[in-house]
Amino acid sequence: MAKQRLVIFDTTLRDGEQSPGASMTREEKIRIAKMLEKMGVDVIEAGFAIASVGDFESVKAVAEAVTDSTVCSLSRAGAEDIDRAAEALKPANAGRIHTFIATSPIHMKYKLRMQPDDVVTRAVAAVKHARNLVGDVEFSCEDASRSEFDFLCRIIEQTIAAGASTINLPDTVGYSTPGEYGELIGRLLNAIPNADKAVFSVHCHNDLGLAVANSLSAVLNGARQVECTINGLGERAGNASLEEIAMAVRTRQDVFPVDVRLDTTQIVPTSRLVSSITGFPVQPNKAIVGANAFAHESGIHQDGVLKHRETYEIMRAQDVGWHTNRLVLGKHSGRAAFKARLEDLGIVVAHQAALDLAFTRFKELADKKHEIFDEDLQALVSDVQPGDVPKRFQLLELEAVSRSGSRPRSVLRLQVDEQQLTVSAEGDGPVDAAFKAIESAVSSGAKLELYSVNAITSGTDSQGEVQVRLEKGGQIVNGNGADTDIIVASVKAYLDALNILHSDKQRAHPQREGV
Amino acid sequence: MAKQRLVIFDTTLRDGEQSPGASMTREEKIRIAKMLEKMGVDVIEAGFAIASVGDFESVKAVAEAVTDSTVCSLSRAGAEDIDRAAEALKPANAGRIHTFIATSPIHMKYKLRMQPDDVVTRAVAAVKHARNLVGDVEFSCEDASRSEFDFLCRIIEQTIAAGASTINLPDTVGYSTPGEYGELIGRLLNAIPNADKAVFSVHCHNDLGLAVANSLSAVLNGARQVECTINGLGERAGNASLEEIAMAVRTRQDVFPVDVRLDTTQIVPTSRLVSSITGFPVQPNKAIVGANAFAHESGIHQDGVLKHRETYEIMRAQDVGWHTNRLVLGKHSGRAAFKARLEDLGIVVAHQAALDLAFTRFKELADKKHEIFDEDLQALVSDVQPGDVPKRFQLLELEAVSRSGSRPRSVLRLQVDEQQLTVSAEGDGPVDAAFKAIESAVSSGAKLELYSVNAITSGTDSQGEVQVRLEKGGQIVNGNGADTDIIVASVKAYLDALNILHSDKQRAHPQREGV
Repeated sequence: MAKQRLVIFDTTLRDGEQSPGASMTREEKIRIAKMLEKMGVDVIEAGFAIASVGDFESVKAVAEAVTDSTVCSLSRAGAEDIDRAAEALKPANAGRIHTFIATSPIHMKYKLRMQPDDVVTRAVAAVKHARNLVGDVEFSCEDASRSEFDFLCRIIEQTIAAGASTINLPDTVGYSTPGEYGELIGRLLNAIPNADKAVFSVHCHNDLGLAVANSLSAVLNGARQVECTINGLGERAGNASLEEIAMAVRTRQDVFPVDVRLDTTQIVPTSRLVSSITGFPVQPNKAIVGANAFAHESGIHQDGVLKHRETYEIMRAQDVGWHTNRLVLGKHSGRAAFKARLEDLGIVVAHQAALDLAFTRFKELADKKHEIFDEDLQALVSDVQPGDVPKRFQLLELEAVSRSGSRPRSVLRLQVDEQQLTVSAEGDGPVDAAFKAIESAVSSGAKLELYSVNAITSGTDSQGEVQVRLEKGGQIVNGNGADTDIIVASVKAYLDALNILHSDKQRAHPQREGV
Repeated sequence: MAKQRLVIFDTTLRDGEQSPGASMTREEKIRIAKMLEKMGVDVIEAGFAIASVGDFESVKAVAEAVTDSTVCSLSRAGAEDIDRAAEALKPANAGRIHTFIATSPIHMKYKLRMQPDDVVTRAVAAVKHARNLVGDVEFSCEDASRSEFDFLCRIIEQTIAAGASTINLPDTVGYSTPGEYGELIGRLLNAIPNADKAVFSVHCHNDLGLAVANSLSAVLNGARQVECTINGLGERAGNASLEEIAMAVRTRQDVFPVDVRLDTTQIVPTSRLVSSITGFPVQPNKAIVGANAFAHESGIHQDGVLKHRETYEIMRAQDVGWHTNRLVLGKHSGRAAFKARLEDLGIVVAHQAALDLAFTRFKELADKKHEIFDEDLQALVSDVQPGDVPKRFQLLELEAVSRSGSRPRSVLRLQVDEQQLTVSAEGDGPVDAAFKAIESAVSSGAKLELYSVNAITSGTDSQGEVQVRLEKGGQIVNGNGADTDIIVASVKAYLDALNILHSDKQRAHPQREGV
């Protein structure tokens, strides 16, 4: 007998993007969505259509770009939200509206300031309204794990009757333990008369480190959809991580009554793409996708591995996509090989001009760098994609000098809108000096919140990928820049962040919320 | 009725250190151990005494430095290993020998090449031998989760009878799920006649993301010791993370029949210390200790927090030590304030000369940097501590120039043993040029495996902390360097790594293993 499918609902582009500092542009969301589709994710939550014009456009763009996965938009339980979600989802091959309202006493009282009866009425109306617009409607009981059981039964029964085909029970604050959460799902499935008319779903937060375990416990008790994110991205401590859910289910087929339909070899490339776009590093000891996840330091462990692989390994690195991206292009690679590799990586370069520019940059890079890895290509394409952010600030030339005993000094020639400016400053280091020089021209008023550099690949000819996080008036933006020269990469990242900050596409998040 | 204590056994210094690239010097281990002691950790596993001279010395040094926590050394189940562990633990106020042998069919057959009867005989002999040397003996059944139940009962009953007061059941390969692992612990406690004579312990690996959940499930089924690490450091995907275990138990006192005696406000400072020493970043969405763990991006969530804290928060940031380290020394801070702050941070500067040097560096830094944070102090002290690594290579002077259109160039004056050398090179960036210049003098033959930079604090006057990982002939070393000038910091980190690589204190790990 074939096993039931566990529906994988990825919310990297919605809940993941709500991480402070993880905002993504529309182009970036499309690139991630294409990778998720290639991996075989069942449902992609692309955003929260009513939250901003940027969110609306992103949901719409993902709906246009993706054909194999269902594309979903979040919406509160109100007609205006739902209409906006339906509008954004119009181009989708398969679209889903995900509407939610809080059901816990504490949320109903302090956040919604509504009576429970009114919450049920509004939820039912929302589901009915959504079903008039799309065939696939999911309803979430926000803060389900702290809601009263009888109230959950009541609102779930009525929303299923109103047409919701997926019922999601978020552990919104990451408070549950696997025992109680699994029990909750099992009891609800038993108690609700029409429970068989819907797929029960879970959405767990990781505040106590239990998001994956809570999700899996729910699956053992009858849940058939898990909401999760790449790298466990998400608000606060994040969501259940897709890679851990998928590999636990796949590795322990003796325990789980379900399977996922994912191509798990896409996991590591997708993890790297999300990390590179958000600038959120993956710690080396992260399960599945961390750099050390399949590395064995200790001597006898290595010995054990050699003697018999299963003594220490329960999964094979290649099954999750390690080593599949070992490269590899070099300076003699032609345009066709370059383009084919981009396609393999799920990178769509929309315009011929952008492809030409990318190829030129690739050749320049290949002159400096012996081997070009997939990560280099990702960085390079991020750089040349026209994107939806106008490039008001660009670096033309740079000179930076560090000398013991005197203050480091940087001189930059910048393109600022139509103007070319030469600016210079001293600083505590050449990067500080360069940033001060930029600010002497731009006076952005932004505060540098984070500065980090990672070598994209190993070796001294590696490119450095710099991330700069700026904050201004409560807005947080991340800028990225890659170059073999760390000072140049730093300046590119700073200017990238300024471009986003000054773009009208920068979303305000005042009306954001989630499950 | 007072709750039973859950014994917290920290193995950051042993299993954590076995992460590829996480090797620590003796001085670094002492600093971490002092923080763990201050936090109230019950048992500190300081190393694997027989693995190398460096490991032996580290265990001994930690045993000397720590008084409030039990100090433990790992050892295989053989007299020579155990004697070495006992020798290293001699200075301990309370010492424990932790001896282990594999008990799963696959490990006994392929790794040990021993018959099960002989494994029992050796385990019992090891425990008896250890008990002749110390009063506190722990026995681990390596790969317990894949061992046969009856065999586990037999070996555990006999090792308890031989004098083991703690029995540890590792999920060595991270294969278990919470349901089956909890059930295993419960069944063993019921089936073994003398189970009440020992504390049952768990040691879970995180390969499927379930280490914390498996540990907690075991606690609900009677385990009274959890082995864990700061930041979940450890081989492959790491161990159960101490901070998640502690805060789950503390936050869900309604679920757990035990409590921990930890001062949880030491969690964040300890996490940062471990991250800074190992160079392993903590991802922003890591539970408890990640930068975003207590940050709330989404507007309505923020609104909810303002309306009623518990709508979205289940823990308070200050309870785990966020914001307690905000302070702040400045250029007018005196020697007394400086010294007091170091003591607060658990930093012991052994020699007056080192303290003088640290204070001088502090004043130099305060001239460049407006506010000095705890992280700055940690970096500064790492720099001046004499440590156990001779400084064969040191930077005297540096000049680095980056200029658009020409190759970046760095010129360095180095102290190499007794000699002063001036070297220069061009490179793809000024850092690459500086590393090439160093190699032109040193010819280390090492391969650069990782290069990363993190700003120690935010703001443009922040210091950059650079980590360089070098590999040579299978040895991996990490070097760290901090400076407001990123190129200087990079050179310091590279030279630090070379110093470790050329030190006879650098441990080989050929006979390493673990549970």
